[in-house]
Amino acid sequence: MKLTILFGGASFEHEISIVSAVTLKEKLQNRFELSFVFCDSQHNFYLIEPSSMKAKTFSSGEYKKAPLLTLARSRFVHQKMFKKIEIDGTVLNLIHGADGEEGVIAGLLDFYSFSYIGPRVDASVFSFDKRYTKWLCEAKGVKTIKYDVLYANEHKDIEFSYPVIVKPARLGSSIGVSVVKESEEMDYALDVAFEFDSAVIVEPFIEGVKEYNLAGYVANGELHFSIVEEPQKHEFLDFEKKYMDFSRSEGPSAAQIDDILLNKLKEAFKTIYLDMFEGALIRCDFFVIDDEVYLNEINPIPGSMANYLFEDFPSVIESLASSLPHKKRVRVGYEYIHSISQAKGK
Amino acid sequence: MKLTILFGGASFEHEISIVSAVTLKEKLQNRFELSFVFCDSQHNFYLIEPSSMKAKTFSSGEYKKAPLLTLARSRFVHQKMFKKIEIDGTVLNLIHGADGEEGVIAGLLDFYSFSYIGPRVDASVFSFDKRYTKWLCEAKGVKTIKYDVLYANEHKDIEFSYPVIVKPARLGSSIGVSVVKESEEMDYALDVAFEFDSAVIVEPFIEGVKEYNLAGYVANGELHFSIVEEPQKHEFLDFEKKYMDFSRSEGPSAAQIDDILLNKLKEAFKTIYLDMFEGALIRCDFFVIDDEVYLNEINPIPGSMANYLFEDFPSVIESLASSLPHKKRVRVGYEYIHSISQAKGK
Repeated sequence: MKLTILFGGASFEHEISIVSAVTLKEKLQNRFELSFVFCDSQHNFYLIEPSSMKAKTFSSGEYKKAPLLTLARSRFVHQKMFKKIEIDGTVLNLIHGADGEEGVIAGLLDFYSFSYIGPRVDASVFSFDKRYTKWLCEAKGVKTIKYDVLYANEHKDIEFSYPVIVKPARLGSSIGVSVVKESEEMDYALDVAFEFDSAVIVEPFIEGVKEYNLAGYVANGELHFSIVEEPQKHEFLDFEKKYMDFSRSEGPSAAQIDDILLNKLKEAFKTIYLDMFEGALIRCDFFVIDDEVYLNEINPIPGSMANYLFEDFPSVIESLASSLPHKKRVRVGYEYIHSISQAKGK
Repeated sequence: MKLTILFGGASFEHEISIVSAVTLKEKLQNRFELSFVFCDSQHNFYLIEPSSMKAKTFSSGEYKKAPLLTLARSRFVHQKMFKKIEIDGTVLNLIHGADGEEGVIAGLLDFYSFSYIGPRVDASVFSFDKRYTKWLCEAKGVKTIKYDVLYANEHKDIEFSYPVIVKPARLGSSIGVSVVKESEEMDYALDVAFEFDSAVIVEPFIEGVKEYNLAGYVANGELHFSIVEEPQKHEFLDFEKKYMDFSRSEGPSAAQIDDILLNKLKEAFKTIYLDMFEGALIRCDFFVIDDEVYLNEINPIPGSMANYLFEDFPSVIESLASSLPHKKRVRVGYEYIHSISQAKGK
């Protein structure tokens, strides 16, 4: 089976995407005919040889010698005088953060009718912006932590007592996130967060809260789940720790939880996923407080596709790639123009 | 000032978009250096001569003789042996319905760093799908009519008494919409709506409800409003009537309403628009029941840009084009790859 790994992008998580792509090469190369398409910060596409899939290829700028690709219907194309390369496999969108997760890449892939693994435009919007994730959960009846939104150049007092956690509304991978223990630290934390976004989310920070991560996807009309992971505990995962996480390929053991909690986690995942995330393998990060499940975050393109949470990851990607949603083709006709032209005598 | 009108698209509203484009040519040609880029149902772009901007050019297939365009950074390009045409003006996204209003065109224009008039990706998602418009209003405290969502292949009883109005969740211009007066007619109305979408919105139909339309946009940091229009009353505007509406270039007189209601309408518009629709000129369609304002629909690319609601439409487009939002450029670096490479000894 052909599979095109699309990675890079003009985002703060550009490097993370490279690490994810290198990890997926190792996990998938024995079962797939892989192509690697790198999107640089200028939005040029390059075809990278599998043997060049090393972080150094990108950090050194060496990638610029690779063939430049353009977009065509369902394929990337490299055209030279006497040579035409066509990359026409199913695309796996592995561009983390902006571009990849905000709906821009989804729009591009939809426009060019690619078959692709990854969130669609609406799923991207609802998972990328933490404010809209709250709206989604509210509408679907999934609990989230109470929150407040602050905007740059707006003065507003926080409703919660400290400690609080401060996050840019639209960034992943803990970039710009701070835990604030007392009011004196708040201004600095807000300055940091507003460096990245004009909207900032503030939530109470719950010391020692139980966290569980669960990944899943729909294939062949059924929802399939990963094991539940209890992520390693830090105050919160900062960028460097999360970053290391993106190169993970070894699995944790499943969290020790009872069936009641397991079912609650799966139920919340299902409620969020269905009718929104079809086509994507997502990871939902949950909090559990007094036996109640709260959604913390939706990762519509999790680091290294959360491969380490699945026993047979290549089969996961195979079955997902075989049952991707495709847009209904719209028949375009000119009946109304004809009738209007007649009515207007033109 | 250069302005590129982008129209057509693979949508049920393809023809409507052509009519809108022809209307805008008439309204804007004296003040702008206009280019016309047609997107056909196969997603090819063609450069159409202003003199060929007639419905017949498209319905006859004649447009296929026009120069084919490809996308490049902030421009459309036609490349022939000894000739290169570049279309590099601000784009006005005039693709109504799917493609244009669902976030796909926004993603494409964002990816290629175009300066454009039109809804951004998130604004598109929240206005195109009527379910998400309800969520937006709920979150922002703007009233809407109570509603129910039905899905194809699901049996569910309606909570409201008849008459009700049945609408596909993701289509504009009244396509697939029915007013259902009694339960016997319901199955047929649902069949029609499910032809167009897998999700259908059902709302109570309020006979004789007052309707008001208001358009507006942000330019130079300020919100500017059109006059308020009381649309002509039919049971509801069906596709053909709305269609005629898209070629409108003559203004109605402002609705006779008092300042209290006017301010309520403006306040609701402002709440919806700010921090979501910047860059777009939108028209909000409201209901008024017992002096309370309810949002019915957001049109992020209204028919012929609601030109007829503004006294000096060319100046509206000029000021909007001069203050479009642009994405912050993300600096891509390789610091983490370097530190991780060292940590891993690679």
